[in-house]
Amino acid sequence: MTNAASTDRLHGIFTPNIVPLDDRREINEPELRRYVDWLIDRGVHGLYPNGSTGEFTRFTREERRRIIEIVADQVAGRVPILAGAAEANTRETIRACEYYHQLGVRAVAIVAPFYYKLSPAGVYAYFKEVADHSPVDVTLYNIPMFASPIDVDTVRRLADECPRVVAIKDSSGDLPHMMRMIAAVRPRRPDFTFLTGWDAALMPMLLIGCDGGTNATSGVVPEITRRLYELTVGGQIEQAKNLQYRLLELFDAMIYGCEFPEGFRAALQLRGIRTGVGRQPHAPSQQLQLERIREHLQCLLAAEGFTDEPVAGCPAGQPIDSEQVARIVESVLDELRRRGAV
Amino acid sequence: MTNAASTDRLHGIFTPNIVPLDDRREINEPELRRYVDWLIDRGVHGLYPNGSTGEFTRFTREERRRIIEIVADQVAGRVPILAGAAEANTRETIRACEYYHQLGVRAVAIVAPFYYKLSPAGVYAYFKEVADHSPVDVTLYNIPMFASPIDVDTVRRLADECPRVVAIKDSSGDLPHMMRMIAAVRPRRPDFTFLTGWDAALMPMLLIGCDGGTNATSGVVPEITRRLYELTVGGQIEQAKNLQYRLLELFDAMIYGCEFPEGFRAALQLRGIRTGVGRQPHAPSQQLQLERIREHLQCLLAAEGFTDEPVAGCPAGQPIDSEQVARIVESVLDELRRRGAV
Amino acid sequence: MTNAASTDRLHGIFTPNIVPLDDRREINEPELRRYVDWLIDRGVHGLYPNGSTGEFTRFTREERRRIIEIVADQVAGRVPILAGAAEANTRETIRACEYYHQLGVRAVAIVAPFYYKLSPAGVYAYFKEVADHSPVDVTLYNIPMFASPIDVDTVRRLADECPRVVAIKDSSGDLPHMMRMIAAVRPRRPDFTFLTGWDAALMPMLLIGCDGGTNATSGVVPEITRRLYELTVGGQIEQAKNLQYRLLELFDAMIYGCEFPEGFRAALQLRGIRTGVGRQPHAPSQQLQLERIREHLQCLLAAEGFTDEPVAGCPAGQPIDSEQVARIVESVLDELRRRGAV
Amino acid sequence: MTNAASTDRLHGIFTPNIVPLDDRREINEPELRRYVDWLIDRGVHGLYPNGSTGEFTRFTREERRRIIEIVADQVAGRVPILAGAAEANTRETIRACEYYHQLGVRAVAIVAPFYYKLSPAGVYAYFKEVADHSPVDVTLYNIPMFASPIDVDTVRRLADECPRVVAIKDSSGDLPHMMRMIAAVRPRRPDFTFLTGWDAALMPMLLIGCDGGTNATSGVVPEITRRLYELTVGGQIEQAKNLQYRLLELFDAMIYGCEFPEGFRAALQLRGIRTGVGRQPHAPSQQLQLERIREHLQCLLAAEGFTDEPVAGCPAGQPIDSEQVARIVESVLDELRRRGAV
Repeated sequence: MTNAASTDRLHGIFTPNIVPLDDRREINEPELRRYVDWLIDRGVHGLYPNGSTGEFTRFTREERRRIIEIVADQVAGRVPILAGAAEANTRETIRACEYYHQLGVRAVAIVAPFYYKLSPAGVYAYFKEVADHSPVDVTLYNIPMFASPIDVDTVRRLADECPRVVAIKDSSGDLPHMMRMIAAVRPRRPDFTFLTGWDAALMPMLLIGCDGGTNATSGVVPEITRRLYELTVGGQIEQAKNLQYRLLELFDAMIYGCEFPEGFRAALQLRGIRTGVGRQPHAPSQQLQLERIREHLQCLLAAEGFTDEPVAGCPAGQPIDSEQVARIVESVLDELRRRGAV
Repeated sequence: MTNAASTDRLHGIFTPNIVPLDDRREINEPELRRYVDWLIDRGVHGLYPNGSTGEFTRFTREERRRIIEIVADQVAGRVPILAGAAEANTRETIRACEYYHQLGVRAVAIVAPFYYKLSPAGVYAYFKEVADHSPVDVTLYNIPMFASPIDVDTVRRLADECPRVVAIKDSSGDLPHMMRMIAAVRPRRPDFTFLTGWDAALMPMLLIGCDGGTNATSGVVPEITRRLYELTVGGQIEQAKNLQYRLLELFDAMIYGCEFPEGFRAALQLRGIRTGVGRQPHAPSQQLQLERIREHLQCLLAAEGFTDEPVAGCPAGQPIDSEQVARIVESVLDELRRRGAV
Repeated sequence: MTNAASTDRLHGIFTPNIVPLDDRREINEPELRRYVDWLIDRGVHGLYPNGSTGEFTRFTREERRRIIEIVADQVAGRVPILAGAAEANTRETIRACEYYHQLGVRAVAIVAPFYYKLSPAGVYAYFKEVADHSPVDVTLYNIPMFASPIDVDTVRRLADECPRVVAIKDSSGDLPHMMRMIAAVRPRRPDFTFLTGWDAALMPMLLIGCDGGTNATSGVVPEITRRLYELTVGGQIEQAKNLQYRLLELFDAMIYGCEFPEGFRAALQLRGIRTGVGRQPHAPSQQLQLERIREHLQCLLAAEGFTDEPVAGCPAGQPIDSEQVARIVESVLDELRRRGAV
Repeated sequence: MTNAASTDRLHGIFTPNIVPLDDRREINEPELRRYVDWLIDRGVHGLYPNGSTGEFTRFTREERRRIIEIVADQVAGRVPILAGAAEANTRETIRACEYYHQLGVRAVAIVAPFYYKLSPAGVYAYFKEVADHSPVDVTLYNIPMFASPIDVDTVRRLADECPRVVAIKDSSGDLPHMMRMIAAVRPRRPDFTFLTGWDAALMPMLLIGCDGGTNATSGVVPEITRRLYELTVGGQIEQAKNLQYRLLELFDAMIYGCEFPEGFRAALQLRGIRTGVGRQPHAPSQQLQLERIREHLQCLLAAEGFTDEPVAGCPAGQPIDSEQVARIVESVLDELRRRGAV
């Protein structure tokens, strides 16, 4: 492919930002504006509001529009914006595309239909109708753990038939799947952009041809994801590899062990952004769990120099293994049973 | 359990109705009103608007409210209404509960959080917050193929802690799961209602203790589901069994082989309800598929006496098997390959 | 279908027996013989050695043959035997069929190919080759959680093309799937037998047309499965339902919470059969878990009058819920973390 | 880690070889010997008989031993051998370890228990018992699509507790999973080897720290996998990437669209190895499918210079898409329906 073509492509790290909420769990506009500046100052290449990390499904249609308005106004052209634009049906989605286009976003990102699990033909038909009526470039958003999967053949058809479809953001984390999409599309559409949403594989995804990522970790440690991107595209493979391992540990700590995206929200608070409390309520056991994870995250962020260690310090030893946990749980259950509780 | 307790329970078949649309794909109010009457005339015990069959996710918040308004007004107290009330977050959902309560619905039905897959603790916390603030009785809605699953322990906790939670509608189709829920809850909450959303197992679900069902087939062939219910609770096991087999054939024809709920929409048209075209667009291959299924459905409905046979008649022979289809596809692909197309 | 045809069918409860082992973990022939008598004395309709409960994959080919020899010799024609005959490939499987035929078994049962997940066409081809060369009747064995699934169309083709294929044993627990198989096959092969391997749904499976079951619980509480069978086919629905709920509790206690079939082995020991220790080794946490489950099983079996309560007695109260367990685990993990272990 | 440590590690591409069969479907010893030489001549670093590609489950215990005997004898120390040693239970597996140790293999590879799906504790206990009694180094074999998964914590425990466990071969294709294992184990066991069994991701797996692979494609195109390995470890990233894309196309053509490992067998025949026909029988539709895939494979191998093009030539155009196939199938089904066949 020619350089001319490749320079047209989106590239770099687009941050799927969390939306700070105030005490009434309403959008905290001043903090959202401060967060946008904070991210741009730390080098993210673009913003991606109303993504999964941004909990777009937990806001109303009006709130989703308000979020894009605020972000677009605050960004003021400094970096491109990918605006999540999925709504209840194609007509509503097209209206969102029109509105975000007026706000000057670079492109919209539209998740495949969710709740109902559609066949590839249904997924194709949905994107075709949206793309045929959108005034702004469209990024397909594949996240099979949450929504109907977008298969390789569907991406190829849409890339062939819809000039408005200019990119795919793929959060499957499946590296050969990404290669298959690139192999199927890039020869016909050298301008088509491939972004990975799976932070755990950012470096290898870039090495096999991705143009960048939309990575939730970049909302918390933008310095690391930016540097990882630059080391990788700069061919500093060994250093990039080491950084990818550190990012993986942060990613795992934020994404597993508590409800998504609570780990990211907790870590962001540790970095000084007043995210507020999310809209999804928590059971008491989840609160305890989040407390524990918060301390673990603080230790990881402290090790990167982004915050202080917890007052109680960070453990130096090895984590206990699942067998030990299993034995402890068994002995507790056994004791409870003896007391008649189980 | 006492009879007094059991008489409080919801029972019978609640129809998750499709919403007829007009040529602009807007709610067709007159036809919706006609459809409501048509269903009540044919003996459904209750209505369940804004269910999955009713494609609640493809309408806006305002449209969902309008649907309940129309249905409640048209029903005018003749049968109880279960109103689907899931919105973007707990606050929005509680507001919907309040509004539908004013409209006089018997209870709301709330699907477990979807898109994000929540843990049991997260599912519990969501329903707990809603139930603690709802002015109207709440039916839990478990549909693990589309939304976060509601496990037995969560149902028991909610039944124990929330008097407002009075029922579960379970569309998993997992019979032992239903028994486990009944075994866990009924001894403490004899008033708690268990409804199955899996038409393929309606008779056995009733026989192991379910109080009724919310069955999409009842929106198309209410005469059959009503009769199946009555035969089963009346102990006419052999006749009920035969009817369940006929319902299974209809159910399979409507639910498999095309995008849900298109098969139900197509069959309902054959029964004379002008459903209009759904909001989810179709690829050309899906149109062809739907045409084929429509003819099959017409044959099945004609066999039940609900419509005429297609002009071309209905096949008497055996369906071809998958091996034959595979061989045909292979020979077609082979021919295409030879001509250079593959 | 005619009575003449239906009398040819297999019917009743076939026990997939565990194989008692001695201290060296070799087949304990005297105890196996005693167990066979114990089962027949308690009313099982047939035996099914080398099933999944019998851990056929953990024995060598020679041992599998020895197990059938012992069982066939001890049964001595008192009840029919379904002999598990799956071996490494079709030729080995056919040889096993030949050998078991000589031993006088009523039929063999052959699980679909496992390890590799075969397509329906591959599953068909496997059974077709075996059935075309087997001198003894063949029962298909569908257990999709462990082996390649056998779909409805494949059952129909094999029933159509292979007179030797006379039955299917289905352990999917999927009731509509069973109905679809019966609907597809019974009109053409009224002699074809349908057996369910999912004890949790035995009553409803019999009510929708199954001829019987191959149920692991029948190896532990044959009195209950026999009575459940008789109540159900005798039309005593309410009593059958209550017994099915009791069986479900036993089944769940044996099948969940520890490695299959350890719960069945533990319960059988409580009934006085010296099963010995299984061949699959256990981690220490699994030993603790098994101890706890054993006491729970003892309470359940005592409640049925089959054994004494544990010395420490049985809890009267409610089981603690998953939220409480989660909180306990959190507090333990938190304490461990503070001590530097995590 | 030190160089000294890393030089101890296994590295490179180990070929999981297919076993040629003769007309009676018995092991074709002369052709197996010829194939071993063919592979070593083309640069494979080691051999891995009795792997999944080698269809170990379709041979008897005696045949599995015979295969290792032949391979070990023919290799005669030229390259290291990883011998698949999984048998019916731990005792049988340990005996196989002992025997293969006598034959001089470098290590055995043992798949996690299959058929029954074991918990992590059960998987741990199995490998612990085997490793504690094996006289030869043990490679864990994780292939979650066929066998019980081996999780990260289990690998760490086994690496900590069992000096005999020296490697893991992971065929999950999950790149972050591989990184998590490496992060958990390598600091404590710098001698521990990580091999990937997922050819589609060989280059990125090597780049994030894998030592090599056990790749089925290396049994067909050893020249390519060898070169891909060398380009990658030599830091020729761009060239490696291009080669990985070519390997992906070959891999996909061999692994998808027909029963594993038939695509590999067919491709190997095209390269001149007389593999014979496999032991798993085929339905007629599978034969047709295999014919079609064979021609596609021949075109791919011809493009790499390994064979001639098919007589009929290779298509230059684009593959038809799934929508077109769906439309063709629909029109065929519709025609059949009209003729009364469906």
